[in-house]
Amino acid sequence: MKKQNQPTTLKGFRDLLPTQAAVRKRVRETLVDVFESFGYEPLETPTLEQQSLLLGKYGDEADKLVYKFLDNGKRKVGLRYDLTVPLARVVSQYKNELPLPFKRYQIQNVFRADKPSKGRYREFTQCDIDIVGNTSPLADAEIVALIEKSLKRLDFSEFTIRINSRQVLFNVMEKAGVPKDKIFSVIQSIDKLDKKTQEEVEAELAEKGIPATTITAIFTSLKSVKPDEYLQKVIATFDNLGVQKSSWQFDPTLARGLDYYTGPIFETVVTKPKIGSITGGGRYDKLMSSLGSTDLPAVGTTIGLDRVTDVILDQNLWPESVKSATQAFVSIFDPSLEGYSLEIASNLRDEGINVETYLNSKEKISNQLKYADRKNIPFVVIAGPDEIKSQSVTVKNLQSGEQKTITLKDAVQMIKGVKI
Amino acid sequence: MKKQNQPTTLKGFRDLLPTQAAVRKRVRETLVDVFESFGYEPLETPTLEQQSLLLGKYGDEADKLVYKFLDNGKRKVGLRYDLTVPLARVVSQYKNELPLPFKRYQIQNVFRADKPSKGRYREFTQCDIDIVGNTSPLADAEIVALIEKSLKRLDFSEFTIRINSRQVLFNVMEKAGVPKDKIFSVIQSIDKLDKKTQEEVEAELAEKGIPATTITAIFTSLKSVKPDEYLQKVIATFDNLGVQKSSWQFDPTLARGLDYYTGPIFETVVTKPKIGSITGGGRYDKLMSSLGSTDLPAVGTTIGLDRVTDVILDQNLWPESVKSATQAFVSIFDPSLEGYSLEIASNLRDEGINVETYLNSKEKISNQLKYADRKNIPFVVIAGPDEIKSQSVTVKNLQSGEQKTITLKDAVQMIKGVKI
Repeated sequence: MKKQNQPTTLKGFRDLLPTQAAVRKRVRETLVDVFESFGYEPLETPTLEQQSLLLGKYGDEADKLVYKFLDNGKRKVGLRYDLTVPLARVVSQYKNELPLPFKRYQIQNVFRADKPSKGRYREFTQCDIDIVGNTSPLADAEIVALIEKSLKRLDFSEFTIRINSRQVLFNVMEKAGVPKDKIFSVIQSIDKLDKKTQEEVEAELAEKGIPATTITAIFTSLKSVKPDEYLQKVIATFDNLGVQKSSWQFDPTLARGLDYYTGPIFETVVTKPKIGSITGGGRYDKLMSSLGSTDLPAVGTTIGLDRVTDVILDQNLWPESVKSATQAFVSIFDPSLEGYSLEIASNLRDEGINVETYLNSKEKISNQLKYADRKNIPFVVIAGPDEIKSQSVTVKNLQSGEQKTITLKDAVQMIKGVKI
Repeated sequence: MKKQNQPTTLKGFRDLLPTQAAVRKRVRETLVDVFESFGYEPLETPTLEQQSLLLGKYGDEADKLVYKFLDNGKRKVGLRYDLTVPLARVVSQYKNELPLPFKRYQIQNVFRADKPSKGRYREFTQCDIDIVGNTSPLADAEIVALIEKSLKRLDFSEFTIRINSRQVLFNVMEKAGVPKDKIFSVIQSIDKLDKKTQEEVEAELAEKGIPATTITAIFTSLKSVKPDEYLQKVIATFDNLGVQKSSWQFDPTLARGLDYYTGPIFETVVTKPKIGSITGGGRYDKLMSSLGSTDLPAVGTTIGLDRVTDVILDQNLWPESVKSATQAFVSIFDPSLEGYSLEIASNLRDEGINVETYLNSKEKISNQLKYADRKNIPFVVIAGPDEIKSQSVTVKNLQSGEQKTITLKDAVQMIKGVKI
């Protein structure tokens, strides 16, 4: 192997070192708990898909961001761009095996060749929940209930689930006289209202060739429009599902960028902790039929795992979760006593304690303790000649400094946090 | 969106539908439990890496199987081929942040543009454990102990961890007079001895230009060679770590295909259930320095999650794990009673029960029960006008057919499996 310059991660990609990975693991587990409590089942799909599946579903702007290439067999392939289109493929491909409605959760990485910035990665993790094969407003409402429950379980105290419907937007467009072939383009501009001023969006619309009178009509209509009939039914179900009035808001300016939405759309902004937008979703009743399947209505949302994990780490919201999963460290007093230490470690493991042993019996005991401390392991176990003679171990709490020479049975209790 | 032919998964790739995904989830959790019980911490690295990192590490044959392409910025990128080279990069890149020895586990997908066949996928999941920054035989022995513990926790009753050392093979090659520049090529042929006959491997070596006398000398030497000094020390530690004599075997014909191994190598063959090879690993002390880092010794193994999951499903080894994670199904008697049913579902969830509600109150109750049965949900809860009047619910065990009209409190006990 040739020696080379030190390689690094590609721009827009990142490693999750143990502390980050451990927090992310707990976030995942928390969300899976919520999803499974509502009867959602897991699904995994491949990272690579056919380009013909990926392209033409998300809109022209998004299509440019799909990672595309020819594989060794010259097949046109691409990297997963979201988890919704793969779900649509799965439902078309296995429609005889899957009981409908199909309620699945899926937590996988997606890829977008976008300009990277703080909190915006080219590979990131989406947590999706979707219900396929159901047109009841109860399904849309359940997705909103799951968003609310998930964020509460993550201890986020202030957030707003913004709710609108593509139908509301279509009605606004029609009333304002937007030509049919420009509707999606106008919706994509409206979608930028949370990042741009109204003036900037108006300028963008003018550039797209929308007449000034139409633009004025759009914004006037957006200020007064009410939820359509279907969305009203969704909202009416919130009470029974325990969704609190303070958790959501009807917002006719919410547009969502992707082409495939047909009905209600949702997006969540978390204000405490300050995260911004972390969920996006809605109803997409035509995506399945565009894949050659029978028409299957669907509704769902994605929750962005990266932003959630980043804010929990940045603001130290879950101090417990950054502690090591390792509960005890067994040092090796000297090479001749290695066997005794390994045996103690093994006994502690049998009691359900996560134990690391030092893997070099020649290292000075002080350096071994330094290593345990650097790894934030709470307890250190020492077994020297005195301890062996008295069939005991010395346990030191690295945080409090407390140290006791006790039996192994008492050591188990001490490490497990039971006062002895 | 244009209607198109029904797209399918790419050849060599696969979807994991809920039953498969649920079993895989439990396998993952089982392995993570074992890894964490020995103090290993999680790590995640990107799917895409620079080609300069991926190529020239695994050997010429493997390099051809790396998925390579130019991204939108014309950067030469490739898909993760294994989890060892990314680990080496991480350790080089963050060497000042990571306490050494660095013990990490990593469970992620890898990609190989290989010919797909039964149980061999182009995208598959590896579970890796590695120890970086330690040259003690205790580290190699701990990896073997973890393989044994993992397989036992997976309930695999008969397996052999084949153990050899690259040093043993280098000694054999030197003694037999293999030219230095052909050693890796010969090792790659020897590696095929578990799939090909000795005659076939001899023919392959002859084709590679190895003289007949050298070939004879190689095979004679392989029959009599003993573990080298380092490997003897590894083996001597097994007893203290609780590794049983019946779990492993010294096998001088074990070669492992990849270039980067320098010391002990391990591979596990599981015979009951019949799986074949499911772990591979060893010591690789030079990989880090080849990445421009200081010399950092390392040892580890990978466990193939796909074969493990496939065999558990094929042979129904974990009958409990294919049951639905959903414990109860709350039907909706008729649209006017929707609110009461949703409230019951919510109360059951508050008691820690995973509950699915039917999302269409207009569906006939018999069809709702059919759906619950098809999804293998064990309990169905019915709340009609009679139940509402008596403030009770009817709970039906779909497996036994047993049905009771009881209070919600008793329903919780019944669903949780406590006799009432």
